[in-house]
Amino acid sequence: MQSFPHVTSFAVALIATWTANAAAPTFQKTLISTTQNIHTAEWRMNASDLPSSPAGAQWQITKTTLHGGKQEGVDLITLDNGRLKIRLIPTRGMGVLDATLGEVRLGWDSPIKEIVHPRHMNLESRGGLGWIEGFNEWMARCGLEFAGHPGRDKFITNTGATGEMDLTLHGKIANIPAAEVVVEIDREPPHRLRVRGRVDERVFFGPKLELWAEISTVPGSNEFTLHDRLINRGAAEQEFMLIYHANFGAPLLGAGARVVVPIARVVPFNAHAAKAAARWAAYEAPVTGFVEEVFMLHPIADATGRTTALLHNARSDRGMTMSWLVKELPYLTQWKNTAALADGYVTGLEPGTSFPHNRSWERERGRVAKLKPGETREFKLQFAIQSNAAEVKAAAEKIRALQGDKPPVVETEPEK
Amino acid sequence: MQSFPHVTSFAVALIATWTANAAAPTFQKTLISTTQNIHTAEWRMNASDLPSSPAGAQWQITKTTLHGGKQEGVDLITLDNGRLKIRLIPTRGMGVLDATLGEVRLGWDSPIKEIVHPRHMNLESRGGLGWIEGFNEWMARCGLEFAGHPGRDKFITNTGATGEMDLTLHGKIANIPAAEVVVEIDREPPHRLRVRGRVDERVFFGPKLELWAEISTVPGSNEFTLHDRLINRGAAEQEFMLIYHANFGAPLLGAGARVVVPIARVVPFNAHAAKAAARWAAYEAPVTGFVEEVFMLHPIADATGRTTALLHNARSDRGMTMSWLVKELPYLTQWKNTAALADGYVTGLEPGTSFPHNRSWERERGRVAKLKPGETREFKLQFAIQSNAAEVKAAAEKIRALQGDKPPVVETEPEK
Amino acid sequence: MQSFPHVTSFAVALIATWTANAAAPTFQKTLISTTQNIHTAEWRMNASDLPSSPAGAQWQITKTTLHGGKQEGVDLITLDNGRLKIRLIPTRGMGVLDATLGEVRLGWDSPIKEIVHPRHMNLESRGGLGWIEGFNEWMARCGLEFAGHPGRDKFITNTGATGEMDLTLHGKIANIPAAEVVVEIDREPPHRLRVRGRVDERVFFGPKLELWAEISTVPGSNEFTLHDRLINRGAAEQEFMLIYHANFGAPLLGAGARVVVPIARVVPFNAHAAKAAARWAAYEAPVTGFVEEVFMLHPIADATGRTTALLHNARSDRGMTMSWLVKELPYLTQWKNTAALADGYVTGLEPGTSFPHNRSWERERGRVAKLKPGETREFKLQFAIQSNAAEVKAAAEKIRALQGDKPPVVETEPEK
Repeated sequence: MQSFPHVTSFAVALIATWTANAAAPTFQKTLISTTQNIHTAEWRMNASDLPSSPAGAQWQITKTTLHGGKQEGVDLITLDNGRLKIRLIPTRGMGVLDATLGEVRLGWDSPIKEIVHPRHMNLESRGGLGWIEGFNEWMARCGLEFAGHPGRDKFITNTGATGEMDLTLHGKIANIPAAEVVVEIDREPPHRLRVRGRVDERVFFGPKLELWAEISTVPGSNEFTLHDRLINRGAAEQEFMLIYHANFGAPLLGAGARVVVPIARVVPFNAHAAKAAARWAAYEAPVTGFVEEVFMLHPIADATGRTTALLHNARSDRGMTMSWLVKELPYLTQWKNTAALADGYVTGLEPGTSFPHNRSWERERGRVAKLKPGETREFKLQFAIQSNAAEVKAAAEKIRALQGDKPPVVETEPEK
Repeated sequence: MQSFPHVTSFAVALIATWTANAAAPTFQKTLISTTQNIHTAEWRMNASDLPSSPAGAQWQITKTTLHGGKQEGVDLITLDNGRLKIRLIPTRGMGVLDATLGEVRLGWDSPIKEIVHPRHMNLESRGGLGWIEGFNEWMARCGLEFAGHPGRDKFITNTGATGEMDLTLHGKIANIPAAEVVVEIDREPPHRLRVRGRVDERVFFGPKLELWAEISTVPGSNEFTLHDRLINRGAAEQEFMLIYHANFGAPLLGAGARVVVPIARVVPFNAHAAKAAARWAAYEAPVTGFVEEVFMLHPIADATGRTTALLHNARSDRGMTMSWLVKELPYLTQWKNTAALADGYVTGLEPGTSFPHNRSWERERGRVAKLKPGETREFKLQFAIQSNAAEVKAAAEKIRALQGDKPPVVETEPEK
Repeated sequence: MQSFPHVTSFAVALIATWTANAAAPTFQKTLISTTQNIHTAEWRMNASDLPSSPAGAQWQITKTTLHGGKQEGVDLITLDNGRLKIRLIPTRGMGVLDATLGEVRLGWDSPIKEIVHPRHMNLESRGGLGWIEGFNEWMARCGLEFAGHPGRDKFITNTGATGEMDLTLHGKIANIPAAEVVVEIDREPPHRLRVRGRVDERVFFGPKLELWAEISTVPGSNEFTLHDRLINRGAAEQEFMLIYHANFGAPLLGAGARVVVPIARVVPFNAHAAKAAARWAAYEAPVTGFVEEVFMLHPIADATGRTTALLHNARSDRGMTMSWLVKELPYLTQWKNTAALADGYVTGLEPGTSFPHNRSWERERGRVAKLKPGETREFKLQFAIQSNAAEVKAAAEKIRALQGDKPPVVETEPEK
C-alpha cells in the first residue's frame, strides 16, 4: 500500500514515543494498525512462543474475529495470564467484555446478547439513548467530548458561533474502533503482558482527543491494571469527560452483596434515589420493574492519594477491588439497577472525572475537566479478584481503616 | 474462539428448543450464528446432496454474499423449490427480496437499486423517514417496538421517567441482521425446505423482543409459508407492532389489476385517500406525481378463522393469494402508490397487528398488541401464485363466497 | 450468484451507454460492481501490462483496501500517471484524497487522521454537522439533494404533504460508496487513464440522482480532469446542489499565499467575514482560534465560457490552477480557515451550482438548480500543478488579463 504522508508523519512520532524506551526489553506484535494498514483476523501466542518465558508459564493471548448478526467483523482479544482471563473489544473502544478467575467473573448478563459492531449503533436514536443498544461490557469507557446523560448543551460551530447540540448518553468513545492495537510483553520478569490500543475521538471543528488505552497483567496473578493516557492533539484547550463504567452481575452481585468504599459524602442523583439513600451500600435481590438508583460518592484517599472500592457477595467470600488515585478520578458513581435478571440485574461502580449528569450540569458545578493543547493526562486503575473469605476480609478492613470513625455524610436530597 | 458464557447459556437453551423435536427427521445446516461464531460466505446444496430426496427432485438452496457499494457484505439466500424461487436477505431482518414462478414475480421495481446493508442506513434521517432509503423488498417486516408513521411518542427512560422520543418510520426490524440462520430440510416427504433466522430487537432499557422468522416451501409447489415466532424475553409486559409489508409491481400490478379480499369495512387513512375510497379495489396505470392512497381494511375470517387476499392482473390470468388467521393479524393495510415507473409503481398489501399510523395513534384506538414476559406469539402467512385464469377464478370465487351478499362498508371520512 | 432481474435490466442499459463508443479503443477493468457482484480487494496494473503502451511509459494504477479502525474496508485507488499521483476513495463517494507532483501536494493535514468508512459516520450528529467527522479529502463533493449549511428546510413527505426536515452539512454524496467503479485506458495516444465510478443518491420518496464521477489524466502530464455526469433518474423534476469542495494546506497554503481569480464581485458570507473582506485574496500564517472566513465569488468567464482560479504560495513558485465552465458551475466559494496546524490549516476553493448557505436560503435567491426527468448535466474541472515561478507567472497573467482593468466589487456587508 502507498504510504499516507499526512498520516505517517504523525504516526511515526507516536510509535517512536511508545517504542523508544521499550524496544529492546519487550516483545511487540501489532494486531491492528491504520498507519501500517494491518488488520489481523486471527492470531494466537502463548508462553512457549516467547524464549524468555520461564518454564511452566501458562499465559496465552488470542485475537479472533466475531461473526454473525451485529457481531460480524468485531475484534476480540483474550488475555489469559494463566489464572485470570480478560476479554477486550478493540472494535468497541478497547472496552473490556469480562474478566474471570475461577468462579468469579467481572461482568454481567446484559439483555444485549451480541457484541455490537459500532456500525450497527446510532447514538442519536431513542432521544439520545442509542448507546444502550450495545451496552453489555464489564467495563465501558464513557466520554470523551462528553459523558453522562443526554440533553442539550452549547458548543462552538464552524462559524465560531455558540450553537446548541443534543449530547447523547455517555458519548462516543465506546463505539469507536481502535486505530492501533499492539500486544507487548516484557522479556524480563515479571513478564508483564500488555494490550494497548489507540482510540481517536477527533472532529474537525471540535475535540482532537487521543486515548491510549492499556490493559496489563502479570502471569499467574489475580490482578490487572488499566493504564490510560489521554492527549489533547488540538491547538486549543479542550474539555473532556471520562467515566470508567464498570458493571457487575452474578456472582458478586446478589441479595446481600455490599459495596465497601471509604467516602466522605453520598449524594443521591435524583429524588428517586434519595428515597433509598440510607441503604445505598447494600444490594437486594432482582425486582421486576426496579428503577435505577444512582448515588454520587466522594471517595477518601489514603496517604498516597489512593482509594479503593470493594464489591463482595453476600457470603463475603468472593470479591473485587478497584483502586485508583483520587486526583485522577475524583468522583465515584454507584449505579444500582437490581432489576429482573432478564432485564439486566447489574450494579455499576464508576470512577470518573465527573458524575454522569449532562455536561451542562457538570460544567456548572466545576466537574468538567480540561486539557491544555498537547497536554497528556494519565488514568490508572488497579483491579484484583478475591476468591475467599480471608482475601475479602483483608480488603474490607483496609478500606474501613481509611474510613475511620467518621461515617460518610449521606445526603437525603439530590444535588441542586 | 472462546465461548461466551453469558451468551452461550442463553443460546444453548434456544437451540435445544428448535432441535429437540426435529433432530433426527431433518437435515440441518447453520449458515450464520453469533453463538457458534459462524458466517458462511458461499454455500450451495441441491436435491442430489440429500440421500433421502426422491429421484427427479430439482430443488436447490444457495447462500451468497453481495459485493460493491452499499451491498458489500449483504447475505442473500435463494430458496428454489424447483418451480418457485424465493430470495431472502438475512442481513435485512430476514426480509424477502422476491419470489418468482414462471412469469409471475412477487416483487417490484423500487428506485432503490442496491440491497442496502443496514450499516448504510440512518433511520433517524429525513425527519424519521430514513427507512425508505433501503426499501426495495417484496416483503419487509415493520416493527417490532414500533411500526408505522414517524412522530413523537412516549417511552420509559432509564430513570423510570416518562420521556418522549421520535419514532422512526416502520421501526428497526428490517434493518437488523439475523443473528442465527439455519437451513432445515425434512428427510420425510413432502421434504419441506425451510430457512429460519433469529432477529433480535433488544434494548437495555426497552424491549427484549426475539423474532424467529421462518420461510418454507415444498419442492415443486406454487406455495410458500412464512411462520414467525415472536418472543418477549424481557421481564415486563411489552408492547409490539408487526406489519408484513408485502409489495407488488408488474406483472401483477398494472392498469385494471384488482385486489379481492373479504372485508367488513374500508377506512381511508387520510383525507386524500378518502377522495378515492370508492375505487379502492382497482388499480390505475402509472401516474407521475401520484400521491399514495392508503386504506385500512377489516378482513372477514372464514369458519377456521382464516382470511385470504388476492391480487390479480387486468386479464385475470396471473395472481397471488395470501392467507392468514385474522386473530393473528387482524388488520390489513392497502397501500396504493401507482406512481411513475421510475419513482416506484407499487401497491402494498400489509396484514398487521395494527394499521400504520404512529404508535401513539394506534395505542389510543387499542391496536397496539402486548406480550407478557416470556410469552410467544405466532404469525403464519400462506402465499400461492396463480399462473392461469382458472386458478385466479377459483381463488376469487372462494373469497367472494366469504364476502357473501353483504358488501363492505366503505367509509368516506378518515378515522378520527 | 443469481442475477437480479430488476437491477440487471437497469444496469445493462447504462453499461451499454458507456461502452458503446469506446469498446474497441479502450482497455476496461471493472473493480467494483453491484450489478456484477464484484469487489476487487487488491489490483495493480502498469504501462507494461498494456501492449499498446509506448516504450518508457511509467504509469501505474493500484487498487487496495485499507485496514484498521474506522478505515477497515475502505477502498483506495492510486492513479499514477508517471509524474502526477492521484488517490481516490470510491468508498467515500469517489472523493479525491490528494494529488501530488514533486513537492506540490493538493491536499491538507486534517485533524481527521483516518479515511473514515461511511458506516462510522452519522451525518445527523452534532446538530447536523456530523459530516466534519470524516472530512480530510483534498476534494469532497457536496450534495446532491442538498449541500451547504445544516438547518431546516421543507420537503415532500410520503403522504404528499409538505414536511420539514433538518438538512445536514454538505449532504450525503461524500459518504455514499460507489456502486460501480471502472478503470478505462485509451489504447490510442495520448493513452488517457480514467477511473469512473457511479454513486447513487436515491430515496424512495425523494431524489433519484445518479452521479458518474470520472477522473482522468494523460501519462506524464501535470494535469488531470474531473468529468462528472449527473442524471435525474426520477419521473419528476428534481432540485440538486453540487459543490466541489477542494481543500489546500501546505505547501501551497502559507503566510503570503494568494488566490488569483477573475471575478466581478466578492460577497462576504456573514458579518464575521465582512470584517476581513478587503484582504480576501491573501492568506495569513496559522492562528490558533481563527474563525473561518467565507467569501462568495462571482467568477468572470473568458470568450469560451471558461474561468480559472490559481492558488500559489508566497514565493510564487508553486501553484495550482483549476478551470471550469461558468455556466456549469457559476459560483465559487472561498473558505479561509487558517487555524492552527493541529486544528486544520486549510483553504477551500469550491466551484458550485450554488453557494453553501442552507438550501432554503439558496432557493430563495434562485441558486438551487434543477434537472428534468431523465436529464443529464455535465461538470468538467481541469486541474494543473505549477512547479516553478514561470508557470505560476504565466497562469497569473492569463487570469489578470481576463480581469482586465476593472477590479472586483468587494461588498462590505453580507448577503441579506
